[in-house]
Amino acid sequence: MRFLITGGAGFVGSNMADRLLRDGHEVVVYDNFTTGMRRFLASAMENERFRLAEGDILDRPALTRAMAGCDFVFHFAANADIRNNLDHPDFVFEQNARGTFQVLEAMRAAGVRRIAFSSTGSVYGEPEVFPTPETCPFPVQTSLYAASKAYGEGMITSYCGGYGFTGYIFRFVSLLGERYPHGHVFDFVKRLKENPASLQILGDGHQRKSYLYIGDCLDAILTVIGQDDPGVHIYNLGTDEYCEVRDSASWIAARMGLQPEFTFTGGKRGWVGDSPFIYLDTAKIRSTGWKPRLTIRQAVERTVDYLTENPWLLEARK
Amino acid sequence: MRFLITGGAGFVGSNMADRLLRDGHEVVVYDNFTTGMRRFLASAMENERFRLAEGDILDRPALTRAMAGCDFVFHFAANADIRNNLDHPDFVFEQNARGTFQVLEAMRAAGVRRIAFSSTGSVYGEPEVFPTPETCPFPVQTSLYAASKAYGEGMITSYCGGYGFTGYIFRFVSLLGERYPHGHVFDFVKRLKENPASLQILGDGHQRKSYLYIGDCLDAILTVIGQDDPGVHIYNLGTDEYCEVRDSASWIAARMGLQPEFTFTGGKRGWVGDSPFIYLDTAKIRSTGWKPRLTIRQAVERTVDYLTENPWLLEARK
Repeated sequence: MRFLITGGAGFVGSNMADRLLRDGHEVVVYDNFTTGMRRFLASAMENERFRLAEGDILDRPALTRAMAGCDFVFHFAANADIRNNLDHPDFVFEQNARGTFQVLEAMRAAGVRRIAFSSTGSVYGEPEVFPTPETCPFPVQTSLYAASKAYGEGMITSYCGGYGFTGYIFRFVSLLGERYPHGHVFDFVKRLKENPASLQILGDGHQRKSYLYIGDCLDAILTVIGQDDPGVHIYNLGTDEYCEVRDSASWIAARMGLQPEFTFTGGKRGWVGDSPFIYLDTAKIRSTGWKPRLTIRQAVERTVDYLTENPWLLEARK
Repeated sequence: MRFLITGGAGFVGSNMADRLLRDGHEVVVYDNFTTGMRRFLASAMENERFRLAEGDILDRPALTRAMAGCDFVFHFAANADIRNNLDHPDFVFEQNARGTFQVLEAMRAAGVRRIAFSSTGSVYGEPEVFPTPETCPFPVQTSLYAASKAYGEGMITSYCGGYGFTGYIFRFVSLLGERYPHGHVFDFVKRLKENPASLQILGDGHQRKSYLYIGDCLDAILTVIGQDDPGVHIYNLGTDEYCEVRDSASWIAARMGLQPEFTFTGGKRGWVGDSPFIYLDTAKIRSTGWKPRLTIRQAVERTVDYLTENPWLLEARK
């Protein structure tokens, strides 16, 4: 099969590209390199089944041309900067809401009718049910980022009903692993390299977070889309455990061989719109036979190892 | 208070404008007259507390200027053509998704922080719980129209949390009454005037629908916003009854003094994405003390009377 991956030079997209190439597929990566990294595509570039199409998802004609002959689209391109989304609402709207719309319209124009979409566990807002199942009560959105992802879901499900698309929607917890380019594990590693003696943590450190290893995430996605059922498919992706930010900070320090003093800014949230707890019910994805191979601690440690071995990435991102 | 009403020359907006003027408020109507009607503003135009600002909600600078000095925004402008939304996805995206975003950004720029929004009972998709409460299970969107409205809700609730807005979100059933400009009661009246002998009904006629009289809708909105609570407020608006399309067709015919033969195209849905049943739990809005004054049949009859007395409207809309 030939797959097009939007945001294919990013964390999730480039890992998926490598996996699909390894499995014998053809891959077109579509990326504007705003946050994507050419170095993430180094090994893919050596494969004759790989093609890079540099462009913006808002450029519908270019995106349509890139999709020619493709069977399936992974739509991973997005502004994933949840934390600062209030500082640039236009960017969130354009990249996530209008971007997803342009991807769907390009698919319609190119005759591609299967899509997998990276949504987020934050579409549940501040849920009252933990672990949170896909069918929890209609959530109230609390961030522009999550609202734009929920809209992406809504457009995709409408295209399934209205235009005969098949849609796979994955609500991720935060992902960790090779090429992990932002978020609090990244920040902690970067700051501990700069100052091994102390680390300031936003909030009271008791914010609970759930993580999933990127390799386990790809396994889950490929399991689901391999079933090739028509219609709409919505899955939470996560592990059955969670940790506190304090835990992950101490695992990171230990893996780096450091004993920093931790300080806390206080408060239950790291920032406005920060969900104090994302913990997803994964019974549905587990019913396919999939299960994660790495614990959260193992995923954190593998991420620390990767960043330690790839200091260029710490330097490349602010 | 000074209110700005987007879509203020439309069905809901112009009725709200008249009501607010009657109650002694200042009103700015912002409308591009794509579907709005100047005749709906005839009496408002005679009031010195009324001002018309002609413009498109996508023109953020013009909208920001029109909001200067306003205390509150009613955002009613939208592409409300649910039935044909698959024929013009760009228009739905621009007018509903990007339009609502521009309204919110204009408010932020103009320093207006209170908004009421016309959402829709169709955000519930194809619910499994009837009557459907605001907290039903996370719905799967089935139309581009409803998905765009759900996104409008999500942006508004995010602006409440992120920028200190106060948001009032109303999920309407279909509305009826004076100035009702489209939908099946309109179509039936128009077609029966053209051919009093027979009426073809899409679907099997057993589609169940709930309606609310526009005057009752305005009462509910004004009751809720009058409480002036900060934060997010989401209310279903409807009656505690429903009817079948067959019922409303027969009420319309009877009110017009006709005895047409009814024919049916068959099938459970009138069109792709048509929700076979929208019936909302209104316990929350009733807990404010509000209740509707007109039954569905009375609302249908009042609509028939209005359209009979205003044949220009039947001619003005295809």
